[in-house]
Amino acid sequence: MVTVAFERELEAALREKDVAWLSHMMGECGSQDAAELMARMGRQQRALFYRTLPRDVAVDTFDALDPAVQADLVKALPEIGEVFEGMEPDDRAELLDELPASVASRLVAELSDGERELTGIVLGYPEDSIGRRMSPELITLRPSMAVGEALEVVNAHLDDAESIYTLPVVEDDRRIAGVVSLRDLLRASESTRLADLVQEPDLAVAHESAEEAARRCADRKRLALPIVDTEDRLVGLLTVDDALCILEEADSEDQARMGGSEPLRRPYLATPVYEIVASRVVWLLVLAIGATLTVRVLEGFEDTIASMVVLSVFVPLLIGTGGNTGNQAATTVTRALALGDVRPRDVLKVVFREARVGAMLGVLLGSLGFTIAGFVYGWSIGAVIGLTLVSICTLAATVGGVMPLVGKKLGIDPAVFANPFITTLVDATGLIIYFLIAKSVLGI
Amino acid sequence: MVTVAFERELEAALREKDVAWLSHMMGECGSQDAAELMARMGRQQRALFYRTLPRDVAVDTFDALDPAVQADLVKALPEIGEVFEGMEPDDRAELLDELPASVASRLVAELSDGERELTGIVLGYPEDSIGRRMSPELITLRPSMAVGEALEVVNAHLDDAESIYTLPVVEDDRRIAGVVSLRDLLRASESTRLADLVQEPDLAVAHESAEEAARRCADRKRLALPIVDTEDRLVGLLTVDDALCILEEADSEDQARMGGSEPLRRPYLATPVYEIVASRVVWLLVLAIGATLTVRVLEGFEDTIASMVVLSVFVPLLIGTGGNTGNQAATTVTRALALGDVRPRDVLKVVFREARVGAMLGVLLGSLGFTIAGFVYGWSIGAVIGLTLVSICTLAATVGGVMPLVGKKLGIDPAVFANPFITTLVDATGLIIYFLIAKSVLGI
Repeated sequence: MVTVAFERELEAALREKDVAWLSHMMGECGSQDAAELMARMGRQQRALFYRTLPRDVAVDTFDALDPAVQADLVKALPEIGEVFEGMEPDDRAELLDELPASVASRLVAELSDGERELTGIVLGYPEDSIGRRMSPELITLRPSMAVGEALEVVNAHLDDAESIYTLPVVEDDRRIAGVVSLRDLLRASESTRLADLVQEPDLAVAHESAEEAARRCADRKRLALPIVDTEDRLVGLLTVDDALCILEEADSEDQARMGGSEPLRRPYLATPVYEIVASRVVWLLVLAIGATLTVRVLEGFEDTIASMVVLSVFVPLLIGTGGNTGNQAATTVTRALALGDVRPRDVLKVVFREARVGAMLGVLLGSLGFTIAGFVYGWSIGAVIGLTLVSICTLAATVGGVMPLVGKKLGIDPAVFANPFITTLVDATGLIIYFLIAKSVLGI
Repeated sequence: MVTVAFERELEAALREKDVAWLSHMMGECGSQDAAELMARMGRQQRALFYRTLPRDVAVDTFDALDPAVQADLVKALPEIGEVFEGMEPDDRAELLDELPASVASRLVAELSDGERELTGIVLGYPEDSIGRRMSPELITLRPSMAVGEALEVVNAHLDDAESIYTLPVVEDDRRIAGVVSLRDLLRASESTRLADLVQEPDLAVAHESAEEAARRCADRKRLALPIVDTEDRLVGLLTVDDALCILEEADSEDQARMGGSEPLRRPYLATPVYEIVASRVVWLLVLAIGATLTVRVLEGFEDTIASMVVLSVFVPLLIGTGGNTGNQAATTVTRALALGDVRPRDVLKVVFREARVGAMLGVLLGSLGFTIAGFVYGWSIGAVIGLTLVSICTLAATVGGVMPLVGKKLGIDPAVFANPFITTLVDATGLIIYFLIAKSVLGI
């Protein structure tokens, strides 16, 4: 484990470019520790640090880095060909996506024939598809094999196949017949035919979204998921560790979008400040432009405000509560969508649920608002606040619950349609509701 | 796979309590499909449906359900003892947490001695610790064993140990010596001593938080993590599929809290409406009470508003932009904390980054606001809007970035301190900044 004191010394050594200290200390550093340290450094520090790692540690460290960080290193240290040759084909494809075309094609040209071919298979699938993230290196068994024979095949491929614990069994035309686990092979007698052991597998099709396939692997608690083409022929394997990476990325992406920004491609402290600004500025602008709607609405009610200034003091409270109610609904439904607990065709069920939830929350908050505001500002103001809260909460929960489903249906990331977007929408309509209620209750 | 048409028929059969149809159709339904169908039903439908499943499918289906849904079933169908006996000790402990004490103790009393003991080990650790979620059933090997001998031990335990692919090796006093993978055992010659194969393992201590241990298992791409007590003695194993469940729960929890609600314990469509209301109402009230601050602030500036009503029309836009900027920062830092990319002691680095990011965003939005508002409402109003946007964005990003770290330091879930909390805080201070700038620029 890396101590705080050590990290301070390391920072000082990197600042002072103390290569002697670095080379000496990094000799004892494991690849995982090195990767975690690098996730917290700036770009130049990272290149310097990486250069001081012992050769074998450097290779494993490189493997453990995020693709965007790997790409930074490749650009800083061109002599990376050997490490590139040792990577898994799916990791290699991810790195290539991050690199400028000229660097990428140089690296691919330097690959051995076999590795280049495997990389080509993976790169043949669309981005964000599971084909891009699968391992094309496979041990495949036949239903006609005996267990003893199968174990020999496994023994002969212990080094080069990414997973040996879940083994796909295929027919002569490479159509998938099922899977056997190494556990079942070890448990069975040597002469048993695989046909008797084979289990129907959970599959993914190579063109399917990587997130959906990874979620299936996780939900079904599989160590690996066979990946097939549209004709059911085996083309690769998704291992659970890769599924974990995919899900972690997907969840980071959802959370970033729900917070109104684009996801970062590097760890936070390793991301340059201008990239953080870039990840936020577009959404902030879009939302600010959306918010000019509220300016227009309020201008329309300027006379009402002028004749009763006290109405304006409740504006942030009312639209804030609407925004919060909408966010709650949108967050819940977005997460349920990601987990597969809700699907776009459940839209009516969701509307019905959220309208009820919103109405109940509105009645609770509205009664409270009526009582408190009525007590302080008089009962007619209390009635305006109470009625507005009931309407806004019902509307906000319903809109908040439905928007992610609409996004999904339109093929847009539901998380984009979640929180900040809802807030802006609910702000403007909430204000209209508020002033219409105020005008009719107060007779102004 | 379950088709839409089938699901419609199923819903009708459940409504009409058509047990004959259900028993017939469910004979061909796999346990995973059954569990996924049940995740979308109400409580009574679930009990009816579960009763029509064939016996062997029912056992696996039960295993695949969320603990809170399992608890619903136990309460509805008391004859569940046999299923309970067949569960993994860690799953059993989770279910017991969800049950009323009387039901829990009856079920535990009916367990066989061995299973009761294993359950007791797991229940001895605090909730949310990894000890609660580990599997106490282990195959343990000794460093002095030869590979052949080790494989015999593995072969003898193929049925009862949760993982056979990562094998802990312990000294005579149960202190962990390391791990060997089944792959390494198969690759080595029969006479090799395990001492020569053993690798230094990534560990977790049983009292550690379940989320941190699971994140380590995922980050280090391990199929299993040995769990030790404070004296380094092996007490259990965390398998990657359990790590996946833990991380999924943790991410659901974070997302719910960032959206201002408590996480649901059942899938969305399986959660009764009053429980959804309960998960949201407390935070909504807390935030509404916090928002009364904005009412107080605006009351303080009522004269300013009365003398210049146009100032009030920008209120939602300005505080909305502040809220969005704060949310962006809070979301990014909360996620970075969860992934271990940022730690509480990085607080100064985060402040420095977010202040710069906020200032840059503020200058961008502020210049735009100055130009547009100046054009429409005159340049002095434009100056007020521009200056306010610069100040609010800088403040919001800094506060938004720091609050999750403060939460973590205080031992409170950082996600609670994220979005809605930030919004409320930034709303009130943003208003003060706005009206102070307005008063000094406009001289009112």
